[in-house]
Amino acid sequence: MLTVMSEPIELKLSVAKFNQIAEERMPFAQQMGLQLESIATSGVFMRAVYNEDFLRPGGTVSGPVMMALADAAMYALVLSRIGPVELAVTTNLSINFLSRPLPGDIVAQARLLKLGKRLAVGEVSLYSDGGSGDAPVAHVTATYSIPPRSA
Amino acid sequence: MLTVMSEPIELKLSVAKFNQIAEERMPFAQQMGLQLESIATSGVFMRAVYNEDFLRPGGTVSGPVMMALADAAMYALVLSRIGPVELAVTTNLSINFLSRPLPGDIVAQARLLKLGKRLAVGEVSLYSDGGSGDAPVAHVTATYSIPPRSA
Amino acid sequence: MLTVMSEPIELKLSVAKFNQIAEERMPFAQQMGLQLESIATSGVFMRAVYNEDFLRPGGTVSGPVMMALADAAMYALVLSRIGPVELAVTTNLSINFLSRPLPGDIVAQARLLKLGKRLAVGEVSLYSDGGSGDAPVAHVTATYSIPPRSA
Amino acid sequence: MLTVMSEPIELKLSVAKFNQIAEERMPFAQQMGLQLESIATSGVFMRAVYNEDFLRPGGTVSGPVMMALADAAMYALVLSRIGPVELAVTTNLSINFLSRPLPGDIVAQARLLKLGKRLAVGEVSLYSDGGSGDAPVAHVTATYSIPPRSA
Repeated sequence: MLTVMSEPIELKLSVAKFNQIAEERMPFAQQMGLQLESIATSGVFMRAVYNEDFLRPGGTVSGPVMMALADAAMYALVLSRIGPVELAVTTNLSINFLSRPLPGDIVAQARLLKLGKRLAVGEVSLYSDGGSGDAPVAHVTATYSIPPRSA
Repeated sequence: MLTVMSEPIELKLSVAKFNQIAEERMPFAQQMGLQLESIATSGVFMRAVYNEDFLRPGGTVSGPVMMALADAAMYALVLSRIGPVELAVTTNLSINFLSRPLPGDIVAQARLLKLGKRLAVGEVSLYSDGGSGDAPVAHVTATYSIPPRSA
Repeated sequence: MLTVMSEPIELKLSVAKFNQIAEERMPFAQQMGLQLESIATSGVFMRAVYNEDFLRPGGTVSGPVMMALADAAMYALVLSRIGPVELAVTTNLSINFLSRPLPGDIVAQARLLKLGKRLAVGEVSLYSDGGSGDAPVAHVTATYSIPPRSA
Repeated sequence: MLTVMSEPIELKLSVAKFNQIAEERMPFAQQMGLQLESIATSGVFMRAVYNEDFLRPGGTVSGPVMMALADAAMYALVLSRIGPVELAVTTNLSINFLSRPLPGDIVAQARLLKLGKRLAVGEVSLYSDGGSGDAPVAHVTATYSIPPRSA
């Protein structure tokens, strides 16, 4: 039986490079304490480091923090495959909030479902770091549009 | 022919009351310059007052600003119908980004599609204030869960 | 004051032509009794003519009927603008079910939110024909990918 | 170190029982050749057995077949946890179409992301059976509303 060897995936972005882009060009990522922790062919991990500004009425972490984290994690994931292309932009993002996270860091794990010439689709699971249990607090699917030149 | 008179809708939240909640309890709303402008039975208008922190690579307004604005507009809309219930929470939010807004205020127009005992569903159209043309820059649908006591 | 005259929109598909495509090439559309009723620049109307196969447990119209109707209405809408391009395909469809329709026809009203070179985004409101009240029973947003040649 | 033993999950529906419900009460499931193949605590597998009526222009399997399959797989999954409750209904379904499946069976793998008292959220990966490669052809997230009595 033959084994099909798929070509190795080349990562086109480092953690340091992304965090530099975020620091210089994504002010909201700074406000929300977003830090890319790892990039691999299997996906990326990004963390939102907790501060009190995360809270919303009811004492839980606000939805916009989780949406921003998921969107930035997908951006890092897409750039890791196509290189640091500025105008890769989200075309669709859908989030299901599953439980209310207690105050604390939120961690995102993003992976690709499809990398096409024009669209990249991925899913992001969000976890409350230090929360009891290992169930995600939110689940996101997102589509990015890839500019023609970078395809 | 009889005319069916539907009961008048009672608004249970004022613009001033919501902006007070936002000021005291929603720090991210402050960071993003969110201001509720009007509440009516037909829906609400909310504005994200532009500052440079809105920008993302490519010189356009970042997605998280638009998602936060849409989510907060829906929150105001739901509270205007059920009263200032803290734990009305988003269960699902889906956004389509339609065009890249130039730097400037973003305005949200939110209206209800359904107000049930347990779920409220609405749609939000986002516009670039001062942008050329009247096409929305993004479109959102969102579902809020209504706590049992407030139903 | 100057009036900006926008160019008139040319419709590239007739009701008869779409219904012919549906009859010849979309067997599920036949099974579900889908009939395009009108095409205009403001949008399209499509009807799912009721038969007992629509029902699901609980005596209400099944979700798949409504999803198929919304998807086909968006397809007709997109083709009305770009011409009868076979491989315009849905990339994303999100539906919110708002109330349970009684047995009967379902009518879809679809309109474009954006028509770009690569993506078309629209929304579809579904109504129970003959249902009490004028509230939609479901609301859909959908994105179609437009093949390069037809852009 | 203590090991937390989670309570074993009781399955409240058999494959045979679901297929009986489908045969008697879900005519569209019959038209689309939907067959539940397995139920486990980790999720369910359901198959849409190919017939020529699946096709749409372009020679690919139509979206409504995939949406119906995903929705029915989620329904089986939810009923496997709460029992055969008729009025568990979809409130939201979002699908990303990732590639165009060749003519052939479509297989759905559904798993729960959350099972709450009022809402169940799950994700469904759809595969082309016999297709080259193991990438999904579509990905779905869906929310079901659980009636009060069955909570």
